[in-house]
Amino acid sequence: MKVIVQKFGGTSVKDKETRELAAAHVERAVEEGYKVVAVVSAMGRQGDPYATDTLLGLLNQNGSQISTREKDMLVSVGETISSVIFTELLQSKKLKASAMTGAQAGFRTDGQYGSARIVDMQTEALVHRLEEVDVVVVAGFQGVSGDGELTTLGRGGSDTSATAIGAALQAEYVDIFTDVEGIMTADPRVVGEAEILPSATYQEICNMAYQGAKVIHPRAVEIAMQGKVPIRIRSTASEAAGTLISSVIGGAAGSDRIERQVTGIAHISGVTQVTVEHTEGVVQQAAIFRELADNDISVDFITIQPQRLVFTVPDERSPEVKILLDTKQLEGTFIHNCAKISAVGAGMTGVPGVVSKIVGALAEKDISILQSADSHTTIWTLVHGEDMNKAVLALHQMFELGRQVKQ
Amino acid sequence: MKVIVQKFGGTSVKDKETRELAAAHVERAVEEGYKVVAVVSAMGRQGDPYATDTLLGLLNQNGSQISTREKDMLVSVGETISSVIFTELLQSKKLKASAMTGAQAGFRTDGQYGSARIVDMQTEALVHRLEEVDVVVVAGFQGVSGDGELTTLGRGGSDTSATAIGAALQAEYVDIFTDVEGIMTADPRVVGEAEILPSATYQEICNMAYQGAKVIHPRAVEIAMQGKVPIRIRSTASEAAGTLISSVIGGAAGSDRIERQVTGIAHISGVTQVTVEHTEGVVQQAAIFRELADNDISVDFITIQPQRLVFTVPDERSPEVKILLDTKQLEGTFIHNCAKISAVGAGMTGVPGVVSKIVGALAEKDISILQSADSHTTIWTLVHGEDMNKAVLALHQMFELGRQVKQ
Repeated sequence: MKVIVQKFGGTSVKDKETRELAAAHVERAVEEGYKVVAVVSAMGRQGDPYATDTLLGLLNQNGSQISTREKDMLVSVGETISSVIFTELLQSKKLKASAMTGAQAGFRTDGQYGSARIVDMQTEALVHRLEEVDVVVVAGFQGVSGDGELTTLGRGGSDTSATAIGAALQAEYVDIFTDVEGIMTADPRVVGEAEILPSATYQEICNMAYQGAKVIHPRAVEIAMQGKVPIRIRSTASEAAGTLISSVIGGAAGSDRIERQVTGIAHISGVTQVTVEHTEGVVQQAAIFRELADNDISVDFITIQPQRLVFTVPDERSPEVKILLDTKQLEGTFIHNCAKISAVGAGMTGVPGVVSKIVGALAEKDISILQSADSHTTIWTLVHGEDMNKAVLALHQMFELGRQVKQ
Repeated sequence: MKVIVQKFGGTSVKDKETRELAAAHVERAVEEGYKVVAVVSAMGRQGDPYATDTLLGLLNQNGSQISTREKDMLVSVGETISSVIFTELLQSKKLKASAMTGAQAGFRTDGQYGSARIVDMQTEALVHRLEEVDVVVVAGFQGVSGDGELTTLGRGGSDTSATAIGAALQAEYVDIFTDVEGIMTADPRVVGEAEILPSATYQEICNMAYQGAKVIHPRAVEIAMQGKVPIRIRSTASEAAGTLISSVIGGAAGSDRIERQVTGIAHISGVTQVTVEHTEGVVQQAAIFRELADNDISVDFITIQPQRLVFTVPDERSPEVKILLDTKQLEGTFIHNCAKISAVGAGMTGVPGVVSKIVGALAEKDISILQSADSHTTIWTLVHGEDMNKAVLALHQMFELGRQVKQ
């Protein structure tokens, strides 16, 4: 059975017009001889009656906090509705189509409501259904725990649904349809000459997604990577090839591998750098991190030195950090409104001089580097917020991203 | 465990105000030491975004017919939403409350989508949950088939959900909350002096429900009767006792049994009487009924005589009946716009003279009887539509229903 998974997000199924575009992709795949698993999100965004945020808005009208278990029961209906509406559209086009909930399609998760993790895919029923029809429309985002409780996979969960099915069925492709034509070398609002990447590695896209690029959820990429299923990021509104994500640059091994060091530049703004001097060694440092974790404050860019600690937190959490340090009689230096710039590229591994190129490019534009860090596929720099766009543009130009991806 | 089931229909959970009234009933029952299973319908009616009819309205936008399987997936979300919203309200009142879907609560049905029948109640999970919390809010109307498919119990399904749970848990009462204060001796729009029945038997209410009284679904009453669980029809907006439905008049056996022959008068309008003369005996007559059934035309009031057949159908189906008879070269006499008046009463069993009283009462008002039939607890008469209200009133007065139920 030749299977393709096609995921349509909320904006791709929000109204009749967009659903028609989505259905055309399904139809084409069926004509090409594929069995299609279409994974759909809830229809639309806040304001649309069946969107996730609207359903959540039904709650807390009593100033109370609903249990997370019940919250998952509620929000998961958005995807169920969407799956039926989309199935009807496909049936009206004489396609043999059938809808399934996440539970029916085989998503077994842990019991962590709101951000459940898939622990097993039991796809017998889904495979059986695919033998009978050409298209199974699966409600994304949904799972069921071992106790039979309804769970959801968290934000971006439908991406995860799609790649998990793709991996379980060893699909030829997992197509993530969205409102852009692919993953870009940088945010086009910042870099006018940003280009669509024709291909990238799982690791690159994963890093870019964690570092601010919003096209696909990083967890979804990780699952595809483990399952060795290629992802394509494509536009619902066009037939463009989009960005192919696989284990090698250029897709099929070595076929058109490009010698590039950096694939894309991502950025996250609204970050506060905290420097704490005179800490009493690692025990106190560990205590600080433990308390930050206990308060669910995500910490990044950690630099630990004897008696000195540097890290970043989201701007909005910095007041809590201040209070936390005060209770320990520690003084912190806070630089608010910073931005984290990430240069991502599988091709930088083992290539000397990439950091030096980055530092050079930023220095040339007179941009101070507040902090830096690197892994074998990513180099991060922290800059003042007002330098962010300049820095992204400088790095984009330094690595000639506007040119190198042209084919 | 002392359990009470409380069912709240769509109008009882449609907005914050009505939900507050409903929640007050739950709260009172908990204070009285009950574990409560609250069964809820979808919120509101056509026009409200999460009502069953509105959800159905999302379909057929493509002029197509969705599969019944997918239709059930869609409409059942209305009750899921309702169950979570109501649970949140209860939690905000510091009640220990939890929501369950029909599948989780144990409704195992056959695979007849849209009007599934309950084949088994697997209430282990529900009982377990009731041990942990004070109130479980169950999404009414929903079931799950042996193959794990979502089903719905058809119109009035939440009544059935409530009595099925009541029977399975041997609840003390199943309270059906609605917008009236109980079941009345006749439609108060027709009979000004109609009274609320303080009590009635399952059989009586079942007959009245099948004969046009709309307060509770007859299938729900049958399930309660089999399970020997008393039902109370009560108003969400008051603390009135409502109508107690059990196996004996007056509730607790013999306690305040009233010697009444007739309990209530029900009516259905919009009925066509069809008379077919010169049929060729029972073989042809059987063929006619088979074809009516094949075309899903519900037939009532059947009188079979040699070479003569009389029956009623809903007015809107009579053109089809005409065509059907034409194809058999049979002539039918059609009297449209008739009304069926039912006098229901467990107390008429074995009491002579009830039919004669009815005929006398109608004759006195110069009302022609087009047809009549009787069972041991119901006497039906068919009259012209324009005589309907007069006939209901005449029977109501004849059996002194406005007086006899006063206490």
